[in-house]
Amino acid sequence: MDKLYKHKIEVQPRFNDFDPMGHVNNTIFMNYFDIGKVAYFKAVWNTDFIDWREIGLVIARIETDFMSPILMDERVVVRTTILRIGNKSLELSQQLINPDTNQLKAAARTIMVGFDVNTNSAEPITEKCVEAISRYEGRPFKREISK
Amino acid sequence: MDKLYKHKIEVQPRFNDFDPMGHVNNTIFMNYFDIGKVAYFKAVWNTDFIDWREIGLVIARIETDFMSPILMDERVVVRTTILRIGNKSLELSQQLINPDTNQLKAAARTIMVGFDVNTNSAEPITEKCVEAISRYEGRPFKREISK
Amino acid sequence: MDKLYKHKIEVQPRFNDFDPMGHVNNTIFMNYFDIGKVAYFKAVWNTDFIDWREIGLVIARIETDFMSPILMDERVVVRTTILRIGNKSLELSQQLINPDTNQLKAAARTIMVGFDVNTNSAEPITEKCVEAISRYEGRPFKREISK
Amino acid sequence: MDKLYKHKIEVQPRFNDFDPMGHVNNTIFMNYFDIGKVAYFKAVWNTDFIDWREIGLVIARIETDFMSPILMDERVVVRTTILRIGNKSLELSQQLINPDTNQLKAAARTIMVGFDVNTNSAEPITEKCVEAISRYEGRPFKREISK
Repeated sequence: MDKLYKHKIEVQPRFNDFDPMGHVNNTIFMNYFDIGKVAYFKAVWNTDFIDWREIGLVIARIETDFMSPILMDERVVVRTTILRIGNKSLELSQQLINPDTNQLKAAARTIMVGFDVNTNSAEPITEKCVEAISRYEGRPFKREISK
Repeated sequence: MDKLYKHKIEVQPRFNDFDPMGHVNNTIFMNYFDIGKVAYFKAVWNTDFIDWREIGLVIARIETDFMSPILMDERVVVRTTILRIGNKSLELSQQLINPDTNQLKAAARTIMVGFDVNTNSAEPITEKCVEAISRYEGRPFKREISK
Repeated sequence: MDKLYKHKIEVQPRFNDFDPMGHVNNTIFMNYFDIGKVAYFKAVWNTDFIDWREIGLVIARIETDFMSPILMDERVVVRTTILRIGNKSLELSQQLINPDTNQLKAAARTIMVGFDVNTNSAEPITEKCVEAISRYEGRPFKREISK
Repeated sequence: MDKLYKHKIEVQPRFNDFDPMGHVNNTIFMNYFDIGKVAYFKAVWNTDFIDWREIGLVIARIETDFMSPILMDERVVVRTTILRIGNKSLELSQQLINPDTNQLKAAARTIMVGFDVNTNSAEPITEKCVEAISRYEGRPFKREISK
């Protein structure tokens, strides 16, 4: 499973990520996955600067499974990869794990869709995007065009 | 659809809910749904005080669909109801809408499971919980016990 | 003291405003004061829409005194007024209180400076701004021009 | 100035730290300073685990000066030191800087007071605390007891 995820980034927790139960609050898991997504696309685009108004991908759906609470002073790593690229959408898979114990904390499946911010409409995923992901992941992606 | 949701609460946005795109950030949608969940269970329990260490329900899964961005100065309401109660889990349905236009911003389906914080193990949803929900929603819920 | 503050707004707390000590986290007090500031300027400008890129005021300094913790299920109100308008800056005074007990939770003194976002430089507070504040507060403000 | 601060930690920004102006929101500066404080006291206590219910220090006052906005993709470091230890309080000094340009983004002066969470009352700073700080900072601190 580990091999599936080339991209990993450790999260820097903040004291007020933790709620009165002493766990990272459920809503904050989304921030952690977000840290992974931003870092992943920076790595794919191979740059330190992404103009989020240009990138042409917006989040359409997130499915999150919460496996175990994240306790104070646990380390947390986000692992991110892309599973599938369709015509107008792609599917991102992410995990939060404790890198010391390998305990899986949460998993997320995110559907992102191509989007033109100028015309405000859904757009096919660009070829440039497919190529950059293939190059980064080191395996060929083909747009699966549904009929 | 509106009738399905007895419980509604308006969200008070905060300036830094909005990200550089001028929209409520995706991660903040979870906070908005959370405001709905807390208010819903307060209403069901008919009290101003819930001890979250006692309530015996934890979030196992959230599926969120993002329909439209929330812009600055839009009003936002969270609608919450329970669709189904199983033996060890219940299913919550929520929507974020703009109450002025009725535009649907996002929808979430949340699976919560019974949990004993003392023994740290999954537990059936309590009868007390089923009754309180039935009374609040004004329709009978029966635990659907899967075999 | 109460009379000093014409503007009041109740804060809608969020579950993850609370940290593992069961109190609203110190950093979140800033969000609460921010809710007050935004609502205050909306009231002063007498509009539902402020373009923060036009308003010409940026925060230069905040002094915050933390008097008492905010516990779960306490109500919280932010009170906001302007104490003084100088040539290039104004001084905002705010309090967080529990409206049921009148207990003072925190107080903040904020210095905001006139700023032209186009030229990126400090600017005098505009006359339009002084007039709007005078009208809202119901007492005359005069720019105290330091020599 | 740099030498004053033995303790430095780089902040991991999150996408929704940034507000519609494209800057790190003012309220988030408090989170960044908080990351510095937590890491500082971990270093002083020389441990990975601090029980914040035991540590006996609470924040009484924070003065923050905002010098320059933090833009997207800028790196940010928090520098933290203790300037002075009194009988019942200590004074923390912090800076946010861009480590690439050395540009000062913000500075904070924080007063923390000794506090017994069991009796809920102000307490002198413990000798153990003074010693740990002296050892970490490599310079002797003496409690300045005001009469």
